[in-house]
Amino acid sequence: MRLTPLVAGLPATIPFVGPEAQERALGRPFVARIGANESVFGPSPKAIAAMAAAASEAWKYADPELHDLKAALAAHHGVRPQAITVGEGIDGLLGTLVRLLVAPGTPVVTSAGAYPTFNYHVAGFGGVLHAVPYRQDREDPEALLLATRKTGAPLVYLANPDNPMGSWHPARTIAETIGRLPGDAVLCLDEAYADFAPDDAVPPIDPGEPRVIRMRTFSKAHGMAGARIGYAIGHPDLIAAFDRVRNHFGVSRIAAAGALAALSDRAWLAHVRAEVAAGRDRIAGIAEANRLRPLPSATNFVAIDCGRDGGFATAVLDGLVRRGIFVRKPGVAPQDRCIRVSVGRPADLDAFAAALPEALASANKSHG
Amino acid sequence: MRLTPLVAGLPATIPFVGPEAQERALGRPFVARIGANESVFGPSPKAIAAMAAAASEAWKYADPELHDLKAALAAHHGVRPQAITVGEGIDGLLGTLVRLLVAPGTPVVTSAGAYPTFNYHVAGFGGVLHAVPYRQDREDPEALLLATRKTGAPLVYLANPDNPMGSWHPARTIAETIGRLPGDAVLCLDEAYADFAPDDAVPPIDPGEPRVIRMRTFSKAHGMAGARIGYAIGHPDLIAAFDRVRNHFGVSRIAAAGALAALSDRAWLAHVRAEVAAGRDRIAGIAEANRLRPLPSATNFVAIDCGRDGGFATAVLDGLVRRGIFVRKPGVAPQDRCIRVSVGRPADLDAFAAALPEALASANKSHG
Repeated sequence: MRLTPLVAGLPATIPFVGPEAQERALGRPFVARIGANESVFGPSPKAIAAMAAAASEAWKYADPELHDLKAALAAHHGVRPQAITVGEGIDGLLGTLVRLLVAPGTPVVTSAGAYPTFNYHVAGFGGVLHAVPYRQDREDPEALLLATRKTGAPLVYLANPDNPMGSWHPARTIAETIGRLPGDAVLCLDEAYADFAPDDAVPPIDPGEPRVIRMRTFSKAHGMAGARIGYAIGHPDLIAAFDRVRNHFGVSRIAAAGALAALSDRAWLAHVRAEVAAGRDRIAGIAEANRLRPLPSATNFVAIDCGRDGGFATAVLDGLVRRGIFVRKPGVAPQDRCIRVSVGRPADLDAFAAALPEALASANKSHG
Repeated sequence: MRLTPLVAGLPATIPFVGPEAQERALGRPFVARIGANESVFGPSPKAIAAMAAAASEAWKYADPELHDLKAALAAHHGVRPQAITVGEGIDGLLGTLVRLLVAPGTPVVTSAGAYPTFNYHVAGFGGVLHAVPYRQDREDPEALLLATRKTGAPLVYLANPDNPMGSWHPARTIAETIGRLPGDAVLCLDEAYADFAPDDAVPPIDPGEPRVIRMRTFSKAHGMAGARIGYAIGHPDLIAAFDRVRNHFGVSRIAAAGALAALSDRAWLAHVRAEVAAGRDRIAGIAEANRLRPLPSATNFVAIDCGRDGGFATAVLDGLVRRGIFVRKPGVAPQDRCIRVSVGRPADLDAFAAALPEALASANKSHG
């Protein structure tokens, strides 16, 4: 076989280790699965029913245009369907967006320690990543703007609210950032966690603005990570370009049925938001009880500052994993002093509360 | 926005029109959905139950390694899991395979009128397609070999059994073709319809052979097209390369659960195969009753030679569609003299039998 020079130059190591692989390594299932910012509260009962009903109709391909779902999303967001494309989760949409704008050597801007899957796709299409530091645990719009201008990047990534820190910027800051971008640059505004954010963190949607594409998902607040469905809202010209390269039959019919039902169940979303707000408080309380600092969060997880360096936080994380608690942590300094804990059910957080003191004691021991 | 030069040069028209778009244009649903080679017999009841049960667990991402499914597939095919990668249907796997081997300008070989989605992906990554003619309604291995040698293509496509003609080559011919390929060329052997083929059409699987990758799917005989899950079997080096670029969280957890259950239900597969064999005979009988020639088929569809040119067959197709019968047809001469009819339930084929004489009469009228 003759891999392309680009692919031949990519790392052969697998960057994505799922909790199942960790469970196989541990030899037992996790007690609490609170590491991937999944929604343990599950999908809306209406979405579950819609997906279960769709299972027997799974012999049919999904409508490649996802017409009905796009119409419902368009009505929900007050935009035309031409401003929306649906894909296999934000991960899939990020891959396609990068493919549209990034050729070998193209500069791309993000923050050091922001969503690694975006970086993975940039590398996968040969882009050259320019990463600016976080500033006080938030992505830094000024630095992102500066790097975009300096490198001439056609694409810049910003998550609001942010993963892995849970921090956020007010809508005003985001809108100003978009307004100050060069005319032909595109901000990939990852809003996977927008459903958990305060209202004033989410700018109005304007598909007339060509400099931003908004990424949304049913994986987080809607509890459908495993169904693989998300969408992007942007300028119709950019949205239309997705159709040039995307897998037109890539979205599951079952997922589409679930998404349509989930979208209409606002009561379930309100319930999940309330549970998540309570869970964040609980996680913060557990952190404080262990004399650790919980960072403010506009998401369904809380970054906990373990108070020392990345090595120490890794030791805490390892101690939690060994005790059956699946959590993750930021990978880049100085954010890597934190661990990242997703909101769980009370039993999940009980298990975390029980394990954390032991994990801390063990980490303190190994780190003098 | 600044699309890459490659993307900017791709056609903006959407090549994929689903039956739902046709239904919206018609203003009513199809009476018979027998145009996309879906399995109207549905998934195995065990797969339906597994998918329905997985719906409430859809808050969890799927295991990115698909460990359990790959283990089951490996056992089923008598290979190691390292020889298998799972993806979002063969369409998704084809896109990734092309991405691994095709850079702008890379020659790629296929047959004129073979699976258009493969061509779509080749164009999408800038490859230069060299298409050889079919020979007596079959893909022509000698011509494919010759073109591969002549162009130096690293990738050549062959479906066995073939779509859209339903024809096939014996395993011996396929094995010899692989054996005669240049050492660094890869045959993408699309076996989407292998479950319907006679045993002697499917060569033994040998992941030690680097010159072939076999594409398999749960979309056809397993009736799970809408769930989006397929897999490729190949040399572990080529399979490992998929992990460099694929969307590691692209496969639905629901689909994975369904696939695992479907794989174990050999009785359902035998049932579907028997229904399909009977349905093929019924379609052939309907064709012959209308003095048309049904082509022999090793798939779940039958190509019917309408006896004149492509324009006439298109008129027949249009007449069927107007009468609520969703069928499709080959797009390239001389295969385009045919329409392609997927096996349906008795009621679907009754509707086809009723509509065909009218569609033929109408086509004969408009074509003198």
